Amino acid sequence: MGMPLELNTMIVTKDKEENLGEDCFLLVKEGYRLYPLNIPIELKRTIGGEESGTAVIKKVVMENNQTTITYVLVK
Amino acid sequence: MGMPLELNTMIVTKDKEENLGEDCFLLVKEGYRLYPLNIPIELKRTIGGEESGTAVIKKVVMENNQTTITYVLVK
Amino acid sequence: MGMPLELNTMIVTKDKEENLGEDCFLLVKEGYRLYPLNIPIELKRTIGGEESGTAVIKKVVMENNQTTITYVLVK
Amino acid sequence: MGMPLELNTMIVTKDKEENLGEDCFLLVKEGYRLYPLNIPIELKRTIGGEESGTAVIKKVVMENNQTTITYVLVK
Repeated sequence: MGMPLELNTMIVTKDKEENLGEDCFLLVKEGYRLYPLNIPIELKRTIGGEESGTAVIKKVVMENNQTTITYVLVK
Repeated sequence: MGMPLELNTMIVTKDKEENLGEDCFLLVKEGYRLYPLNIPIELKRTIGGEESGTAVIKKVVMENNQTTITYVLVK
Repeated sequence: MGMPLELNTMIVTKDKEENLGEDCFLLVKEGYRLYPLNIPIELKRTIGGEESGTAVIKKVVMENNQTTITYVLVK
Repeated sequence: MGMPLELNTMIVTKDKEENLGEDCFLLVKEGYRLYPLNIPIELKRTIGGEESGTAVIKKVVMENNQTTITYVLVK
């Protein structure tokens, strides 16, 4: 009777991000995930990989057992 | 450096919900809020009021320091 | 690289609670779970069972992939 | 009727940590805070400061409007 959720402290893209224009990206992840909004967090291409940048999440949508985040690259 | 969040276990509408058709409603709340999806939860018109129904949240959107939920009345 | 978490809106005891004296109880649950503190929530013996009471959680401990809650019966 | 919570993605000590022996530390923070357990996260002395290390949180206790974390330095 609980809702499974994953607490995330970084963004791992696995090259699945979609560029919405300029430094803004959209990424769909499986399951419900809790990400911090408006805080600079690490961006990586793979879990074990080097940090590839820093991003700020502007929007999080949870629906149909997926979580879609919109983020902006900040450096 | 943290993200303020409110953990919610029920929906309090304060008569601000918008009917999207049939038993489906949309409600905008201030701040970032964590609600359980796909689980029946209490629906009330006011915090101290009687329970007015049971609802299941199907979608949660966090953006611009607001949280928008889409829910379905289940009884 | 995320932390699995379960968002809980009620307490399901499965008769595993330990009475700490008077109306105070301790319950150990598997995995990391997020429960609301200081808010009256439903207490049930089984997931599908009738509500058996209302409780307020006073303490939550997450450690070793278990979550231990201390709660007080309020009615 | 919600529970205020702060989602944290790093540990900021403000020099208030207590050394429990070797690389193990205890830190008390005001309010209820959600931290990831068992995942390496940044450790800083001040919010704006340089990263001073990496830590893994082993235990989180929420009680009396405080959150106490036990963490281990990993590098």
